Amino acid sequence: MPVRIIPPTPSAYVYPLLIKHLLHTSMTRAPDQEIVYRDLRRRTYREFRERIGRLASGLTQIGVDQGDVVAILEWDSDRYHECYFAIPMMGAVMQTVNVSLTPEDIAYTIVDSGATTVLFNADFAPLVAKLRPHLEAVRNWVSMLDRPDQPVTAMSVNAEYEALLSIGSPYFPFPDFDENAVATIFHTTGTTGRPKGVHFSHRQIVMHSMAVLVEYGLTPKHGRFHRDDVYMPMTPMFHVHAWGAPYTTTLAGCKLVFPGRYSPEIFVKLIASEGVTWTHCVPTLLQMLLTAPGSESVDLSRLRMVIGGSALPPSLARAAMARGIDVFGGYGMSETAPMLTTSHIKSKHLGGDFEEELRYRIAAGIAAPLVDLRIVDANMAEVPHDGEAVGEIVVRAPWLTTGYLNNPEASEVLWGGGYLHTGDVASIDADGYVRIADRIKDIVKTGGEWVSSIALENIIMEMPGVRKAAVIPIRDVKWGERPLALVIRDPEHPEAISEDDVRLHVASYVERGLISKIAIPENVTFVAELPLTSVGKIDKKTLRALYS
Amino acid sequence: MPVRIIPPTPSAYVYPLLIKHLLHTSMTRAPDQEIVYRDLRRRTYREFRERIGRLASGLTQIGVDQGDVVAILEWDSDRYHECYFAIPMMGAVMQTVNVSLTPEDIAYTIVDSGATTVLFNADFAPLVAKLRPHLEAVRNWVSMLDRPDQPVTAMSVNAEYEALLSIGSPYFPFPDFDENAVATIFHTTGTTGRPKGVHFSHRQIVMHSMAVLVEYGLTPKHGRFHRDDVYMPMTPMFHVHAWGAPYTTTLAGCKLVFPGRYSPEIFVKLIASEGVTWTHCVPTLLQMLLTAPGSESVDLSRLRMVIGGSALPPSLARAAMARGIDVFGGYGMSETAPMLTTSHIKSKHLGGDFEEELRYRIAAGIAAPLVDLRIVDANMAEVPHDGEAVGEIVVRAPWLTTGYLNNPEASEVLWGGGYLHTGDVASIDADGYVRIADRIKDIVKTGGEWVSSIALENIIMEMPGVRKAAVIPIRDVKWGERPLALVIRDPEHPEAISEDDVRLHVASYVERGLISKIAIPENVTFVAELPLTSVGKIDKKTLRALYS
Repeated sequence: MPVRIIPPTPSAYVYPLLIKHLLHTSMTRAPDQEIVYRDLRRRTYREFRERIGRLASGLTQIGVDQGDVVAILEWDSDRYHECYFAIPMMGAVMQTVNVSLTPEDIAYTIVDSGATTVLFNADFAPLVAKLRPHLEAVRNWVSMLDRPDQPVTAMSVNAEYEALLSIGSPYFPFPDFDENAVATIFHTTGTTGRPKGVHFSHRQIVMHSMAVLVEYGLTPKHGRFHRDDVYMPMTPMFHVHAWGAPYTTTLAGCKLVFPGRYSPEIFVKLIASEGVTWTHCVPTLLQMLLTAPGSESVDLSRLRMVIGGSALPPSLARAAMARGIDVFGGYGMSETAPMLTTSHIKSKHLGGDFEEELRYRIAAGIAAPLVDLRIVDANMAEVPHDGEAVGEIVVRAPWLTTGYLNNPEASEVLWGGGYLHTGDVASIDADGYVRIADRIKDIVKTGGEWVSSIALENIIMEMPGVRKAAVIPIRDVKWGERPLALVIRDPEHPEAISEDDVRLHVASYVERGLISKIAIPENVTFVAELPLTSVGKIDKKTLRALYS
Repeated sequence: MPVRIIPPTPSAYVYPLLIKHLLHTSMTRAPDQEIVYRDLRRRTYREFRERIGRLASGLTQIGVDQGDVVAILEWDSDRYHECYFAIPMMGAVMQTVNVSLTPEDIAYTIVDSGATTVLFNADFAPLVAKLRPHLEAVRNWVSMLDRPDQPVTAMSVNAEYEALLSIGSPYFPFPDFDENAVATIFHTTGTTGRPKGVHFSHRQIVMHSMAVLVEYGLTPKHGRFHRDDVYMPMTPMFHVHAWGAPYTTTLAGCKLVFPGRYSPEIFVKLIASEGVTWTHCVPTLLQMLLTAPGSESVDLSRLRMVIGGSALPPSLARAAMARGIDVFGGYGMSETAPMLTTSHIKSKHLGGDFEEELRYRIAAGIAAPLVDLRIVDANMAEVPHDGEAVGEIVVRAPWLTTGYLNNPEASEVLWGGGYLHTGDVASIDADGYVRIADRIKDIVKTGGEWVSSIALENIIMEMPGVRKAAVIPIRDVKWGERPLALVIRDPEHPEAISEDDVRLHVASYVERGLISKIAIPENVTFVAELPLTSVGKIDKKTLRALYS
């Protein structure tokens, strides 16, 4: 027999999970709460809501329709925040263009998404002029000026952003539609080949926002988020919806601070002047924040901070905690919107032995509510929850992209077996903590053993005299693969360390049973810098190509 | 143009919002967390999960199929908790039968829901034997014994509950199906005519659970709920899913305590012995808890408590706060699953003047996340957010019943104009606090003015010498309606108050501008008791009939 479905009463409102509904709380509970944008421009949620209406109305007047894709090339700003809501709420799709890509890749991603309207900051006018001949589908060009006198190239545009808002009505009637309508598109980087487009529906964004708040509210003692917090995202808005922060904070109705440009000096200044209590970022930015000029004189002890993008190195976590920051790891990816796990530590693991607590704080963490996370072997069988066995993390959740744009082959690989394959190798312990061992392709498969490049990097980075390290597998006739350690020396350290020093350091961890003997790298190379991806991770793809 | 919908990759798992997914967190994060049932029976979430599998498997073996309705007549217990999950998770529908109704109404509700299987505690065997001839559609009868020697009448049953579990497999494969499948049915009481059946889908229960946790996690300073809390529901499981507590707490993975029977002595004992930190109930039960034998010697200062069902009287809130309880109001109804608002007070309203804080604590509160709550006049136009103007509360949210079972007329009245009509008259202030003035039908419409029966009751209950009061409208030739005050004297008060004392007391509030002069009741009647509905509210329907 089928399950029982009772058709709703004809008059009943069957509530679609649409982004517009995230605004109810801010509009009734916190209409006068302020949002702070770069240049310290301040608006209340009420003003924000009016500008959303004007933007949707203005875009409609220049011909943007439901289903149209609107590409954004912009620094983080009030306008970007408005686009996050107005464009999906009118039934169109917002493409957040990664402005740090090459011009070729930017053109590729705009064509791939099928965008017909482009909104661009005047700073990108020269780029846009260059791309324009390759973007035949684009009918509408809207410029965005930071100052009235900002130079724009001679290219014709349909409208300037503020002019568009001034002709728009704040009372734009945002319609209801299918909650599975695509709300956003952006492209992932750092993988082989062209950027791949991921897409998220209204339903997925609403469910992700709810789950983030459940996860951040349920934690008893640390890493908690609440309505009196002041949230400042420290990752760009073009990337994974700034980890969903503009949506979750608006649902909470709390004070939001957008730093605009990604400079550690600005972060430090805003933390002090705006009373920021919550943020998120990648390890590189946290390091920059801690060492930024003036940082020492700012009280960071009220800050809670989740670190993602790549693993939180223990040395960095120690440095942040020494400044009083409640720092902890989280894990997710572009394809997962991004939250999958957070290291909201159980009370029994807090406040005891510091190094033990640190081991929990730097873990990827425990699966968030509604996340069905499994760690599986090649046959999709679950590995034991013993903190030792490793396998690939595969997941189901209500907010995962259901495939890559225009790329059925890659989509099928991503979703093989009905679970999203993260490509990350990890263990899980009896308390549910997931610890990432490595990317499947960064694992060093040597002499029948697997050596985690991340574990080896973390050990080398514990060494005085080392500023940064990257480990990649290189081919080896006898062993299959061997680790190559690329090390940046710390210039402030009294004497330069040698290759042998590095090997001896790793060997001391072997003696303590913390890593296999086979991991001691005979290949150690000192380098002046390491290439980074556009989102601040070490670019292992480039390193593998360089040292292959 | 239509909105853009990208079909998922064929292998992708499109995640339906099913009750089974509420279990992921408890199974990975807290499998060894204990659940305490009456008689102090203890089980872990892991054991709970196994018994859910066994129950579904056992029910399948006696012929319960997807779409079938399974009616439960049971005290709160481990078995009831298992039914909450196993029955909907297998695709069947759980009907929670209100065992405090008359036998005629119980039979009516079981027929109305179309139940084909009945699970009943042996305590109800005599009742079941009496109902059986009227329940022709029921094919399966399952008895539930609290003790092996519990007497059951001679009626034949298909199975006993524990025997069913022992033949069932813990590995029952809970299937995926449409998230709009009906999960639960129960009947509302206290309205005119027969009980009306409401129904909730898997999606609605998941969304309600998520929203409750967001609301309870986001509150900065009081009324907070987190994973280390110990939750004991103090309303019966047959009524509105015990306000959703079995679902929300399982999603959180926290310790749960089911008191079983609704005796204040048991509540007090469990609060002390199990370290209960969170509960919810109706005002009557809170009063019983505060005055129960032995209550004074128990520390209640760690308790947080939301009060619903009817308004939290200021006098009762004061008494609870004097014991250190973090008590506050909430508002919802059977049709709304139930949460609509909670008085999670803003930080600016906490810790100042006590009477001012109290005024916020006893409010219905502020709309929960995703709730679109409006207070409207007869033309569905919103009243100003000034804390003065009153209108009817109408709502939309992702978890409202979409109609009454087999009752299209009442369903259309409920959903007139696309908003669910609560039948409650209220004001809303600039901070979003909703304050209930009255039920539309309890408002005393007198001389062209509206007098709130609740406001008048609260004033009378502030009077020393009064234990309880109810106000109902009675017909009046000159004024249309006049208030009748029914008052229970406080037997412990030194001297019995008179009718004139009551009028003088109300007049003192008139002088302070707190209520209209027209509210002073010339009709005051002292009574020994007031009739209650099955869920502990004053039964105004009966009162209106008695005094009409």
